[in-house]
Amino acid sequence: MITAQSLTSFVNPFVGTKTMGHTFPGAAAPFGMVQLSPNTKQEPYALNGSYNPLTYRYTAGYQYEDTTIYGFAHTHFSGVGHSDLGDFLIMPTTGPLQLEPGEADKPRSGFLSSFDKETEKASPGYYSVALKDYNIKAELTASERVGFHKYTFPKTKEAHVILDLMHNIYNYDGKNVWTFVRVEDSQTVVGYRQTTGWARTKKVYFAMKFSQPFTSYGRKRYEPVAYNGFYRKFNENENFPEFAGRELRAYFNFDTTSNQELKIKFALSNTSTAGALKNLESEIPGWDFEQQTEKTRALWEKELSRIKVTSLTPHDKVTFYTAMYHTMLSPIVYEDVDGTYLGLDQNLHKSEGFTNYSIFSLWDTYRALHPLYNLIQPARNNDMMHSMMAHHDQSVHKALPIWSHYANENWCMIGYHAVSTLADALQKGTTTLDPERVLKAAVHSSNLLYYDGIESYLHYGYVPEDLSSASVSKTLEYAYDDWAIAQIAKLAGDSAKEKEYSNRAESYVNVYNPETGFMHPRLSNGNFKSEFDPMDTHGQGFIEGNAFNYGLYVPQNIPHMISMMGGKTEFVKHLDAIFTTEIDDKYIEKNEDITRDGIIGNYVHGNEPGHHIPYLYNWTDQPYKTQQRVRMILRTMYNDEPDGLCGNDDAGQMSAWYIFSALGFYPVLPGSDEYSLGSPLVRSALMDLENGNFLRITTENQSEKNIYVKEVILNGKKLTTPVLRHSELIIGGTLHFKMDSKPNAQFMGNS
Amino acid sequence: MITAQSLTSFVNPFVGTKTMGHTFPGAAAPFGMVQLSPNTKQEPYALNGSYNPLTYRYTAGYQYEDTTIYGFAHTHFSGVGHSDLGDFLIMPTTGPLQLEPGEADKPRSGFLSSFDKETEKASPGYYSVALKDYNIKAELTASERVGFHKYTFPKTKEAHVILDLMHNIYNYDGKNVWTFVRVEDSQTVVGYRQTTGWARTKKVYFAMKFSQPFTSYGRKRYEPVAYNGFYRKFNENENFPEFAGRELRAYFNFDTTSNQELKIKFALSNTSTAGALKNLESEIPGWDFEQQTEKTRALWEKELSRIKVTSLTPHDKVTFYTAMYHTMLSPIVYEDVDGTYLGLDQNLHKSEGFTNYSIFSLWDTYRALHPLYNLIQPARNNDMMHSMMAHHDQSVHKALPIWSHYANENWCMIGYHAVSTLADALQKGTTTLDPERVLKAAVHSSNLLYYDGIESYLHYGYVPEDLSSASVSKTLEYAYDDWAIAQIAKLAGDSAKEKEYSNRAESYVNVYNPETGFMHPRLSNGNFKSEFDPMDTHGQGFIEGNAFNYGLYVPQNIPHMISMMGGKTEFVKHLDAIFTTEIDDKYIEKNEDITRDGIIGNYVHGNEPGHHIPYLYNWTDQPYKTQQRVRMILRTMYNDEPDGLCGNDDAGQMSAWYIFSALGFYPVLPGSDEYSLGSPLVRSALMDLENGNFLRITTENQSEKNIYVKEVILNGKKLTTPVLRHSELIIGGTLHFKMDSKPNAQFMGNS
Repeated sequence: MITAQSLTSFVNPFVGTKTMGHTFPGAAAPFGMVQLSPNTKQEPYALNGSYNPLTYRYTAGYQYEDTTIYGFAHTHFSGVGHSDLGDFLIMPTTGPLQLEPGEADKPRSGFLSSFDKETEKASPGYYSVALKDYNIKAELTASERVGFHKYTFPKTKEAHVILDLMHNIYNYDGKNVWTFVRVEDSQTVVGYRQTTGWARTKKVYFAMKFSQPFTSYGRKRYEPVAYNGFYRKFNENENFPEFAGRELRAYFNFDTTSNQELKIKFALSNTSTAGALKNLESEIPGWDFEQQTEKTRALWEKELSRIKVTSLTPHDKVTFYTAMYHTMLSPIVYEDVDGTYLGLDQNLHKSEGFTNYSIFSLWDTYRALHPLYNLIQPARNNDMMHSMMAHHDQSVHKALPIWSHYANENWCMIGYHAVSTLADALQKGTTTLDPERVLKAAVHSSNLLYYDGIESYLHYGYVPEDLSSASVSKTLEYAYDDWAIAQIAKLAGDSAKEKEYSNRAESYVNVYNPETGFMHPRLSNGNFKSEFDPMDTHGQGFIEGNAFNYGLYVPQNIPHMISMMGGKTEFVKHLDAIFTTEIDDKYIEKNEDITRDGIIGNYVHGNEPGHHIPYLYNWTDQPYKTQQRVRMILRTMYNDEPDGLCGNDDAGQMSAWYIFSALGFYPVLPGSDEYSLGSPLVRSALMDLENGNFLRITTENQSEKNIYVKEVILNGKKLTTPVLRHSELIIGGTLHFKMDSKPNAQFMGNS
Repeated sequence: MITAQSLTSFVNPFVGTKTMGHTFPGAAAPFGMVQLSPNTKQEPYALNGSYNPLTYRYTAGYQYEDTTIYGFAHTHFSGVGHSDLGDFLIMPTTGPLQLEPGEADKPRSGFLSSFDKETEKASPGYYSVALKDYNIKAELTASERVGFHKYTFPKTKEAHVILDLMHNIYNYDGKNVWTFVRVEDSQTVVGYRQTTGWARTKKVYFAMKFSQPFTSYGRKRYEPVAYNGFYRKFNENENFPEFAGRELRAYFNFDTTSNQELKIKFALSNTSTAGALKNLESEIPGWDFEQQTEKTRALWEKELSRIKVTSLTPHDKVTFYTAMYHTMLSPIVYEDVDGTYLGLDQNLHKSEGFTNYSIFSLWDTYRALHPLYNLIQPARNNDMMHSMMAHHDQSVHKALPIWSHYANENWCMIGYHAVSTLADALQKGTTTLDPERVLKAAVHSSNLLYYDGIESYLHYGYVPEDLSSASVSKTLEYAYDDWAIAQIAKLAGDSAKEKEYSNRAESYVNVYNPETGFMHPRLSNGNFKSEFDPMDTHGQGFIEGNAFNYGLYVPQNIPHMISMMGGKTEFVKHLDAIFTTEIDDKYIEKNEDITRDGIIGNYVHGNEPGHHIPYLYNWTDQPYKTQQRVRMILRTMYNDEPDGLCGNDDAGQMSAWYIFSALGFYPVLPGSDEYSLGSPLVRSALMDLENGNFLRITTENQSEKNIYVKEVILNGKKLTTPVLRHSELIIGGTLHFKMDSKPNAQFMGNS
């Protein structure tokens, strides 16, 4: 049960559902494959042949302001900047059967329904809403692999459940590949759906059980059918128990009495309908909706309690636990209850010795999400590392994942950051993987010549902009990733590879232009690009950033970067300029990802390449500015309302930044043992380190104004640099922050 | 090695490839999943929105007169009257790369090639041809699951192998659903292909190995692609090791020296690419093409030697062994070497205790093909019976197969004749299936109310023509099938069911109209249809037949049928009329299936419903006419040339009719223990009954003119009726026919 003390009571699933957070309010278990949530609009991906920018608002299927629901789909991304999924939309209706979805804000124009915002409730593992057009109360919960629907109907002879097998998030012609359905008996339906898109070859199986028999059912096939079998002799549209096609919707009819509860269990599998049925029976054998809701809530309570905080304000506590919640909606468990899963090679595999996960948004999550798991979820992170290695083993490229979901590599964004997460796990001792095996996979992944400028990166020592766009971003990230591989090599005892990759890690120097003082796109002839605007995020060698901010991405050698850029004093000026520049609108309009709300000067918190920037003051003589900036960002870029995220949550990375920073430190260099100190926002925290140890974070004089750190004491020992070591933290004990309203010169740069 | 004595030397795979036999000349192992054969034309299924009748000539991908080859595809039907398949077309070429197939008879218009007929050779398990446009000798062989190609190239730097992943037999828009390919290394390619069509949801996996590395490769995607991923950064058209899409062709380039042999092993699987690789490595681990050819030939030799015949003419021996060959091209083994297979429920299963088979053309093959297996292939037939029961178990209808292939029920033609094959196997003791389990499946299959008029059949006692077309054919076949179920019930000891189904088996009386003297389409109001033409095969209550011939389909109670139709004398008149009527052209033109060559009067040997008719004289006072008609049919409807089949071989049924009849008897009533005597064409035969016993058939005074049977002696005992019992034959021994040039009154009707 939720009580006032329950941590789940401090989660607001609506945070990030307004503007560009791209989160969803629906029901899911922690890291669950089923994420059952209302879809409120279906913007076509293309309009008149071009990309429809409105699509972008619906990467999670939902916008807070909408007041129409198309139905409840079983798969979603949380906080992602592109999309796919939205599989298996279920909608209960009454009255004349309507199989077309209808138009948003036009009641009764289809099977959609309007709803009043005040009827909408969401908490971890539970969502409910009153579907106004049908007088149906909809309630949802979920286990890891099973969505559980409860619909309270009015009395009617015309009750329907629509199963829309054509519905997609990011919908376009050709997205639906094939759909296959069997009505096994009057309460059981199984099948699968194949789509193409971001995941080019995606297949999801389902098994669906109704709590009572339907009285009749049917389907409609929408695509033009050139050929429909030879001498088929049935009405296959009504009460015919198998159907298949590219574009299908099905419906099931019921007689209901007043306030009759119709429940649906809807299991997913990536292997087979038999797997889906097994998942269903294993996870939710009975029909007690409230019991399942409580069971899932208890799972969330357990996950959230890995960090127990007291906060400055009640709002902060909601922001904190909602961030915790958002770090546990992806990656997702991607296997059947018996460990069978679909591999990247499209063959079935068994996850021997680990649990297989999918949805790795690695360009985002290597920064703080996986480091957070290494601290409070090391066992699960180990499963994820094994999942990445399995991906590598099954890859025809023998490459680690770049951005992967649903047994597909979608190649999104840049770098080969799986190596960072693996280096971090190896460095922190949280993985059972053999370093030599990891090294081999990492080396191969970093030498994939046809991948995104790698061949020229190896040839020139940088990616030439004339050969591959976003060349500076790529050079910087490859160099960092190569540093991570050097760490893996070191742990594997391979000093030759360590040296080779330490050398590659210095490639960033090749894109630094001393004349402009910026990381500067360079051409294959060795010259730097002549037309250069360090503020522009387009066509200037960067992606989701510009030279001014993204150009500071050398986490592996910040002291050298600073000296290269003119020394600490100059560097502080650069940092200050980032946070204080009044950026021209022209630079913002181009970027669909960023709103004015997500930026501070030229610092863009809504995208990831700058997430380490506020901490860079720690390497100068003015670490207090890190404290100031971090506290400012915590205060202005996050809140506990639907607009509480200033950009895409990016599969939990934005939330992980918040959690670390609110606790007072941040992993500027994943793959190292170090965290960089900031300014805690919590009053206190108790972290369960999963190894039997607990780390208590305490503060003194903590307040809204006392944002500066005067002194930090770890287990009785005063820190002399703004650095914490993972190896020290996991012993547990107490990390004590003395706060002050004035900057303290005590914190020296950690160069 | 083939010697003059080898039975394989008497097989001419070209028989039936001219006109409408619908056979193919390519390479296959007995009952092999891979049937690797040249496709000589690709007629579109539809032209300007209507069915293109030319398609029909190409159900096996090949016509003997053609002189252009599009390539060699791995899956074909043998002798079927509708189509699908043609998966994975391989074509070797030289010169500038061409990815379009080109137009038949236009050399160099695409990757097709012209060829001279005299270069074409085919024998069991081997096919070769010289591809004239490229100076490439193509040779093919196959194991059960692996196609083995050997191409002898000229010296060139422009040698290519095209892998056409769009090619289909019966091609139309929307047929290709999805294709997925991985280039695992420079000699290995795996993937799968999904199509829709006759098999609505069909998927075939492959693994392909080249004998030498290709120098480069690429693909072209043909369908319009609305969306091609987000931030994908490759040239995916060339040397990129994975591709997927709906319409794909791939190519692989080689440097070749003069007369260089490039070999390809191409394995199929219905479960996975891993399964295909396993099949490949298990069945053909090495690269010795000649050794494999010999191995497959030896398998054929073994299968053909189940019946060793001496014949009247050398041509007869070729006709006989080619018929034997054609009875072993389907059903096909449909599982991986480890017994894993895709079930009808689209889940993976293991065939515990049996080998799984697919391609059941049951409306055809229950008549004589499965009875033939029960005599000379009982173990394999038992596997097929288990496969049908597995189909039932996996069916959402819990129905036995009607016409099934590739884990799909295509519902083609009428009846539920799996019950006949099961009754026959149970009756003859060749199956290990439990009769009670079979009965349950049979009963369910015969009560599928939504299937093809069953509901009204049960309600009215006949299928009313106004409710379901081909109503008389259906009524007659359901009644026969119900008799078969009664036999199963009897064997299962269920006398209630035996009685129920014996009653249903009498339903044929409900469509007999004493006023017209014909089985006559009847309406739901009880009246017989007023406009009635007993010669017409369309709209008169019959399918692939008319009232005159199909109306005699009451094998389960021939004596009663005869008395109902006016007694023996009247019936002989009817039979005589069938064979002597000069049928008007108007009745033939309507039927694409039948050519003038395939009919004798109004007897249509090219379709199945009359296959028992020549034997019906045995139930009259003039059995000698059976001998006469049978001998005439054997002589005129079959030969050893490409036009040697007078109609579709129908998955072996036409050939099985030939084999039985040439041996001197025929299973008029499958499900019973009885065969009806005809007139043997062989001089002698030695049948291996697989139970350790051998049945020798000997003749005396056998000649072209001595077509009448004077006396038949089984193991020393003279027969007094024209009936042989299976239970007596399988003891082995000698069946001796004394032949004569004149009819012998000794043979009485067996009523």
